Amino acid sequence: MSAKVGVIMGSKSDWDTMKLACDILEELEIPYEKKVVSAHRTPDLMFEYAESAAERGLKVIIAGAGGAAHLPGMVAAKTTLPVIGVPVKSSNLSGLDSLLSIVQMPGGIPVATVAIGNAGGTNAGLLAAQMLGAFEPDIAARVQARRDRVKQEVLESSETL
Amino acid sequence: MSAKVGVIMGSKSDWDTMKLACDILEELEIPYEKKVVSAHRTPDLMFEYAESAAERGLKVIIAGAGGAAHLPGMVAAKTTLPVIGVPVKSSNLSGLDSLLSIVQMPGGIPVATVAIGNAGGTNAGLLAAQMLGAFEPDIAARVQARRDRVKQEVLESSETL
Amino acid sequence: MSAKVGVIMGSKSDWDTMKLACDILEELEIPYEKKVVSAHRTPDLMFEYAESAAERGLKVIIAGAGGAAHLPGMVAAKTTLPVIGVPVKSSNLSGLDSLLSIVQMPGGIPVATVAIGNAGGTNAGLLAAQMLGAFEPDIAARVQARRDRVKQEVLESSETL
Amino acid sequence: MSAKVGVIMGSKSDWDTMKLACDILEELEIPYEKKVVSAHRTPDLMFEYAESAAERGLKVIIAGAGGAAHLPGMVAAKTTLPVIGVPVKSSNLSGLDSLLSIVQMPGGIPVATVAIGNAGGTNAGLLAAQMLGAFEPDIAARVQARRDRVKQEVLESSETL
Amino acid sequence: MSAKVGVIMGSKSDWDTMKLACDILEELEIPYEKKVVSAHRTPDLMFEYAESAAERGLKVIIAGAGGAAHLPGMVAAKTTLPVIGVPVKSSNLSGLDSLLSIVQMPGGIPVATVAIGNAGGTNAGLLAAQMLGAFEPDIAARVQARRDRVKQEVLESSETL
Amino acid sequence: MSAKVGVIMGSKSDWDTMKLACDILEELEIPYEKKVVSAHRTPDLMFEYAESAAERGLKVIIAGAGGAAHLPGMVAAKTTLPVIGVPVKSSNLSGLDSLLSIVQMPGGIPVATVAIGNAGGTNAGLLAAQMLGAFEPDIAARVQARRDRVKQEVLESSETL
Amino acid sequence: MSAKVGVIMGSKSDWDTMKLACDILEELEIPYEKKVVSAHRTPDLMFEYAESAAERGLKVIIAGAGGAAHLPGMVAAKTTLPVIGVPVKSSNLSGLDSLLSIVQMPGGIPVATVAIGNAGGTNAGLLAAQMLGAFEPDIAARVQARRDRVKQEVLESSETL
Amino acid sequence: MSAKVGVIMGSKSDWDTMKLACDILEELEIPYEKKVVSAHRTPDLMFEYAESAAERGLKVIIAGAGGAAHLPGMVAAKTTLPVIGVPVKSSNLSGLDSLLSIVQMPGGIPVATVAIGNAGGTNAGLLAAQMLGAFEPDIAARVQARRDRVKQEVLESSETL
Repeated sequence: MSAKVGVIMGSKSDWDTMKLACDILEELEIPYEKKVVSAHRTPDLMFEYAESAAERGLKVIIAGAGGAAHLPGMVAAKTTLPVIGVPVKSSNLSGLDSLLSIVQMPGGIPVATVAIGNAGGTNAGLLAAQMLGAFEPDIAARVQARRDRVKQEVLESSETL
Repeated sequence: MSAKVGVIMGSKSDWDTMKLACDILEELEIPYEKKVVSAHRTPDLMFEYAESAAERGLKVIIAGAGGAAHLPGMVAAKTTLPVIGVPVKSSNLSGLDSLLSIVQMPGGIPVATVAIGNAGGTNAGLLAAQMLGAFEPDIAARVQARRDRVKQEVLESSETL
Repeated sequence: MSAKVGVIMGSKSDWDTMKLACDILEELEIPYEKKVVSAHRTPDLMFEYAESAAERGLKVIIAGAGGAAHLPGMVAAKTTLPVIGVPVKSSNLSGLDSLLSIVQMPGGIPVATVAIGNAGGTNAGLLAAQMLGAFEPDIAARVQARRDRVKQEVLESSETL
Repeated sequence: MSAKVGVIMGSKSDWDTMKLACDILEELEIPYEKKVVSAHRTPDLMFEYAESAAERGLKVIIAGAGGAAHLPGMVAAKTTLPVIGVPVKSSNLSGLDSLLSIVQMPGGIPVATVAIGNAGGTNAGLLAAQMLGAFEPDIAARVQARRDRVKQEVLESSETL
Repeated sequence: MSAKVGVIMGSKSDWDTMKLACDILEELEIPYEKKVVSAHRTPDLMFEYAESAAERGLKVIIAGAGGAAHLPGMVAAKTTLPVIGVPVKSSNLSGLDSLLSIVQMPGGIPVATVAIGNAGGTNAGLLAAQMLGAFEPDIAARVQARRDRVKQEVLESSETL
Repeated sequence: MSAKVGVIMGSKSDWDTMKLACDILEELEIPYEKKVVSAHRTPDLMFEYAESAAERGLKVIIAGAGGAAHLPGMVAAKTTLPVIGVPVKSSNLSGLDSLLSIVQMPGGIPVATVAIGNAGGTNAGLLAAQMLGAFEPDIAARVQARRDRVKQEVLESSETL
Repeated sequence: MSAKVGVIMGSKSDWDTMKLACDILEELEIPYEKKVVSAHRTPDLMFEYAESAAERGLKVIIAGAGGAAHLPGMVAAKTTLPVIGVPVKSSNLSGLDSLLSIVQMPGGIPVATVAIGNAGGTNAGLLAAQMLGAFEPDIAARVQARRDRVKQEVLESSETL
Repeated sequence: MSAKVGVIMGSKSDWDTMKLACDILEELEIPYEKKVVSAHRTPDLMFEYAESAAERGLKVIIAGAGGAAHLPGMVAAKTTLPVIGVPVKSSNLSGLDSLLSIVQMPGGIPVATVAIGNAGGTNAGLLAAQMLGAFEPDIAARVQARRDRVKQEVLESSETL
């Protein structure tokens, strides 16, 4: 089945965070593709990727990057598909630079930004699923089932304090 | 036609920012509803709103709030629809508190966060449109047409420096 | 004896910090209860907990959470008991996000916020004791006795520089 | 009737913010006293005020200050009554310095910190009322009635968007 | 004479700041061109501009942008000419977002970042002149002459305190 | 010979930093005394220490503290001797809270603030020496001799790159 | 009578803040001199000023600057007199850049840093007076008398709330 | 062949970062010199270095420093050669202090600032090469060849996710 979600990242070093998004997509049985696409080191590839995304059948793109993180915003400028930006934790400013570089987009080109680091990786996968789920009830049901499981885990964890 | 997008805000004082989201939705001919729903002052209304959103036909919720901005995240906790969070500029910390309160969601419940203040208001409307557009080509086409117009304006503005 | 203080936290991972509050309450012989209650993963439980707190005899609630920390403020929205918020240290922004998400409540619903992390855990227990102590002289006396002991420790520590 | 709440501030220039706390106390019919007490310019007065607070019948102290705001923490060091700290907005750092100077108390001496600026002024009054209300049901009822009125205002404001 | 410096900006609203760079270039008699080129609204134009810059005779590019400022870094990714980035003051975060988005480039693609706002506009012009001046002594001499004039102004201003 | 410099700190845990100030004073042969004096845990001792400092022959006080660091400013409020404040690195906010709590004193009561952490510890000792050295040429000469040695070390370190 | 305090500033635009230091020195009858000395525009003058300061009879130097504020630290590097640094409020980052540029000196060369902006201007004058006062009792007495007057003003201001 | 680039740093402890700039210069076959030059501990050497740089044949200077990092700006004040500033990561504030101390130069004296820490070290070398490359096509070609190699590495890394 062809990919509905494209997961890209600016560097292989972002993989630890971005793998969490892929894990969610697999858990929720959503077909996806993954690729290293660097805004600064492979700018032409980035434009080609974004331009062809819709016609290749993608419904949403997840893009993770750190520091002066330009990948999510530049991809968003080249497609009308929704783009989810994951601010990868940076070595010096703990991802505050990544966050501001991604979220503070000027009026006209939005990026759906999630939390810095691992929580953001997981939530990017879930947010993509929820976007799909608004139109595909099966996916929404799997998201809800996951929440129900997590809720049980929380309730049980309380017993072990 | 029934609303596809719900636009809510924590206080009427957020309206200047959130109106920009509504302006975009009108421009792009997307049916929407708008409401003041406060996480702290009308918590039960907030839960009812979120719980009934999907069955009422909404596909995405835009929620704006400032300061310790809990509205987007709490709504997201009560629906599997995608929730877009708009960090309204706060009077003392310029919206940095709003941004962090919205974007730093723990793994499990994502909020699609946009920029602080007016750029975020506009982009929340566009992001909602793009989420819909991934499944409704007419909307994607209208988003693209708007981008084409804006591009022309940029090119022309260069002549007037 | 029924609990006077309720200690809740958004995740079991907050326990290291929140245990310090419980330690103080035990040291000061104040009956308390403890529970994992997540704003985002168990929102209904959170509302039930807050709504029933006063009638169950609680006089004050201590709520700890990290990141986009919505638990203290949402509990405060559902009870008129005083709520103490503990900003748990977050992995990326060192708890600055937790602090702003808890302390910057809009006018109408206060949260009594203490320091980030472990100092906040300890001080949440003491603050709860002091609130009770304003009406129960025995508790105030035990708080004062604890301060006297700590003062002695400070004086003695000076000898060992 | 003798004062139950003491409202103090480091400078007369803090009055605009601290008056909001007094307004709440009057609205809720809670007797209070108000005074300028400066940690740095009247340190002995500050100590006397804190030491005598409990025996004069106060149940809680609200202390507001800006910049390197030492008043709330120093008063807290000299009484076991609960102390609410209001970070007054400072001219250069927007109250971030006030906030950190008040909230980041070391383990041992807590300050119940509320939001920066006017929201904090209002919420200090409400928090004091809630502390009292935990033991005096009449006050809790008046706090609840106020919340009910505010809820109505929110619901009505939604009609005027 | 053909332009040696290209001055571009993401929006006409950046002109007040970027004009200061142009003023310096005119004062120092350095031929330049100016243009609005938006990373997000005219991404293809941006790539064409950067790709053709060297062959058109430019020796350095000055790029100004605000918020999630991607223009300088993306232009830098498409040319080996040195790129000077000017963080334009943003409406909400005072240009801190602009600064971090520009300066925190990953290893491989540098941007020569100057100060936020007007000081940065002026200094971008001077920095471009100094880069040229390292190879064209006439320009270096004009930079030095300007410094000598400014030094006199400082000395004279001291008399008027 | 009686102490000319008083070195105090809010907690024994500040000793690693404050020892560096003492090391400098010993190296420069300046008599000093050292003591743990806590603003919050031993407030009366703090006032007595500050009030008696001048008559006991001290010429300058060095005070180190972390977090909501009130010790330097409160000591400064109780003596007209110059007070040097050392912002000790805090566990959560890296000493930014310590710095702002110490340096942002209101007009009227200054604290001579040095760098966060170990650099600040060393520099507090040197600054005290320089204050004394302005009136005691022998001390100024020893400060200058130390600088000359350090300069040699820098020059030699360059050979080992 | 020859100047005991040198008041310098990086630009005439710093005068509004630095005049407050001069006002204090006049009020306390301490002879001083004032001058615009720019680290970046008149670096040689800066070095000459610092090198000759001690032999000209100065006992302390007050240096104010904004943004990348290098004046206090560079003057401190060229004299063993104590140097007080005043972080002038900057137009974009509210003086946070000025503060960090002045206070975060490396171990070896201290700068006695005071608050950002006007409070810092006033306190720089007072701190210089207190440094002198440690050795000249007349000055210490005038500082104390000023504090007594201010204390009275605080007490009286309380009556007008 | 005489050095075209001067690489200086405020302390030998900056060498780990600054070595990365030297590595790039060697890789691109650009002659350079390296030296420890401290703004605060060897101020006269710093001025001599800057004043003689142009006549010794340098075309650009790279200066790295941390904390209150004055070296790049002060060198820039004493030469009209372009100066690249590298904000070395500081122990307490992660290099945010270094960054602001270097980049926020007042209008008149620019510093070409690169990223904090190691990315900045590498990019300083590349930026110097690009400045030279604008006039020496061989160097520009080597920069481009390096980019082509890095691009290949990115493409290949994608296969290993």
